[in-house]
Amino acid sequence: MSSLRINSDRLNYTLQSTCSQWGALPAPSTGMRRLTLSQEDKQVRDWLVEECKSLGCEVKIDQMGNIFAIRPGTAKDKKPIAMGSHLDTQPAGGRYDGILGVMAALEVLRTLHETKTDTYCPIALVNWTNEEGARYPGAMMASGVWSTKSSTPLEACWGTLDKDGIIMKKALKDIGYLGITPCDYRENGFESHFELHIEQGPILEREKKTIGVVTAVQAMMWFAVRISGVEGHAGTTPMTHRSDALVTASRFITAVRDIARASELGVATVGVINSDTSSQATIPAGINFIIDIRCSTDEMVDQLAGQIFKRFHEIVEQENNGTSYKTTRTWGLPESKFHETCIEAVRTAALKEVGADQIMEMKSKAGHDSAWTSRVVPTSMIFVPSKDGISHNPNEHTSPEHCALGAQVLLQSVLHYDEQQKLQAS
Amino acid sequence: MSSLRINSDRLNYTLQSTCSQWGALPAPSTGMRRLTLSQEDKQVRDWLVEECKSLGCEVKIDQMGNIFAIRPGTAKDKKPIAMGSHLDTQPAGGRYDGILGVMAALEVLRTLHETKTDTYCPIALVNWTNEEGARYPGAMMASGVWSTKSSTPLEACWGTLDKDGIIMKKALKDIGYLGITPCDYRENGFESHFELHIEQGPILEREKKTIGVVTAVQAMMWFAVRISGVEGHAGTTPMTHRSDALVTASRFITAVRDIARASELGVATVGVINSDTSSQATIPAGINFIIDIRCSTDEMVDQLAGQIFKRFHEIVEQENNGTSYKTTRTWGLPESKFHETCIEAVRTAALKEVGADQIMEMKSKAGHDSAWTSRVVPTSMIFVPSKDGISHNPNEHTSPEHCALGAQVLLQSVLHYDEQQKLQAS
Repeated sequence: MSSLRINSDRLNYTLQSTCSQWGALPAPSTGMRRLTLSQEDKQVRDWLVEECKSLGCEVKIDQMGNIFAIRPGTAKDKKPIAMGSHLDTQPAGGRYDGILGVMAALEVLRTLHETKTDTYCPIALVNWTNEEGARYPGAMMASGVWSTKSSTPLEACWGTLDKDGIIMKKALKDIGYLGITPCDYRENGFESHFELHIEQGPILEREKKTIGVVTAVQAMMWFAVRISGVEGHAGTTPMTHRSDALVTASRFITAVRDIARASELGVATVGVINSDTSSQATIPAGINFIIDIRCSTDEMVDQLAGQIFKRFHEIVEQENNGTSYKTTRTWGLPESKFHETCIEAVRTAALKEVGADQIMEMKSKAGHDSAWTSRVVPTSMIFVPSKDGISHNPNEHTSPEHCALGAQVLLQSVLHYDEQQKLQAS
Repeated sequence: MSSLRINSDRLNYTLQSTCSQWGALPAPSTGMRRLTLSQEDKQVRDWLVEECKSLGCEVKIDQMGNIFAIRPGTAKDKKPIAMGSHLDTQPAGGRYDGILGVMAALEVLRTLHETKTDTYCPIALVNWTNEEGARYPGAMMASGVWSTKSSTPLEACWGTLDKDGIIMKKALKDIGYLGITPCDYRENGFESHFELHIEQGPILEREKKTIGVVTAVQAMMWFAVRISGVEGHAGTTPMTHRSDALVTASRFITAVRDIARASELGVATVGVINSDTSSQATIPAGINFIIDIRCSTDEMVDQLAGQIFKRFHEIVEQENNGTSYKTTRTWGLPESKFHETCIEAVRTAALKEVGADQIMEMKSKAGHDSAWTSRVVPTSMIFVPSKDGISHNPNEHTSPEHCALGAQVLLQSVLHYDEQQKLQAS
């Protein structure tokens, strides 16, 4: 195995300085607001493209604005080994979710360039568009299109609207990232895909481990719930004569939490709620909310959803107040099992860096672009600890040491995989 | 007592045709959307002013856009006997709430004009601005300013914003109703104020009565509730480690309903809810909602609010999940007791029209402009039945017969009060 080492200071300086410049929330917050295809996103993308070109990379932009920066290898017929993640953030997110993975990939390219290291396969940095799904609904959107396994095809994604009514295709064009490379793994593919990411949960920290060898991404499903009641005057309608959609919704939301906690099958969250009425003196007649359910396996998701919906039925029967409801499955990502060769590359690299007692195998509880790439190319992920398990929050934090360690394991995983490719060819 | 009779067909035709022209929701709905100071409101106001002028009335517009159309009396030193209500509606309201009161007042003026009836006191029609508080927050806003008893003074009302950021003073000016008459009962007062209104509740219908002699308006209070939790990733944060503001809010909202129902002290409603987050994959950290509490007396409002807040405290202790909350009293209207002379005028008129078995004395469970006027001039109200008790809803309905009956009782109440004024002077 190679003795190459990434430059920890350079990595951490680059990560912090680019965050400070493009999308930082006002101090003293260390959080980020870098919505996909915003001006801040354009600026960090432009910078990244220039950096990669200066390292001798060829840069391609595809139809979804995904950036592929490819450093050539010695083999003539090999596709790149990709290191992908995303530069966009939640509306009030942190500096590590996604950004660390891209900055670490850049640090790997810088290390290879600086040391004039030849690899057998080309090595690529990939920035996936709209992983967060925060501005345009649909998390991991562009890697989903690329994998062709998502139920949302290119044209449908192009046609989605943000809350200001700006169509995604226009947003891509406006910032200069509506590329011509097909967004399709069959025409622009990889040998494999590695992704360094923060855990976004408390497990590594709690177990006193520094590297997570990720073997899968848990299954997830979203359901839209619509509750209908009857509008009425808040002063004159007796308590016993009300068909209050918000009361039914409140009982549903409490039930989602109670059942997820009791079942121990996984997690279920209501993150967004909207009411039709904006009048304080009117009994609400229409409530919409979304349930996000995540479990280790697809079967467990179905089981937990089934328990929740059974309880909804019981609540409406019990209320017997004329409210009704409808649930619609709006999005899902089945369980993603990673590739043994890639998992082995990460395990080998991590073992060398930190030894067996610092490593744990784990499933990702969050969705990642790697969940999509794993469906069409060998994939795995590397996790580093999140302080207090906090993520999707300005207080998200991963120490500089853990960031550097993750980048080092990414470098060695890629080199190990590359070495095996070379051995197989010879 | 006078033998004058209003013209039922003219009243009902005027009510329906003006609703159809200005602010009707698309058919087959018979509902209304005539937000205060909107174009629809301007059009119906302009029409009303011209109608009143054609009946020989002097028209004054005050600083809050209130319209006063005054038909002179024979006395030199008397203020007008006012018949007030409002032409604005909820965003999805009906054709009777407020509108009936103004159209009935117009019908009274038409009847007096047509029959060349001389009254002792001047008789005024009043259209109060922004009774609904639907576009600009603050129900019964302009009658509150006029009474000088509201905690919200003129300048504060002028400065309120609608959801598009349009300041109220500009909205008044834009439709030509920023008048110069002082909005102050001391400078532009009445002898008394009568208001015909639909009940907006089920009691008259249930009790098979046709006229409600209203003796008071129940007490009401609004509280803003803010719940704070900690944002977190919906996939990676274990169910047991969550500080979910929406779960706490849901338990609170259910408790508001449960306690109001069990206590039988009055009604309590959560009509508006908002979440800080718009991300489906984030545990909500900030929820706002408003509680509307209404009871017969101020003491009962305090008692019900106390029971609700005690339960909030218990819920947060029980959840023990790091969520916290704050309640702020944002608005209140103490119980309004009407004036015995005005109540007696309504009772006398109603007895003559329908007899004792069709009448009931009652408290209003909804707020009305008369609640404010009653604080500074003798006031009472007349109620007519609401079909199924439905209001603040496009299906709000009062039969043409009941509309006409209400207008007839309004006419006779005003004439009876006027006669007494004349008797006292002689």
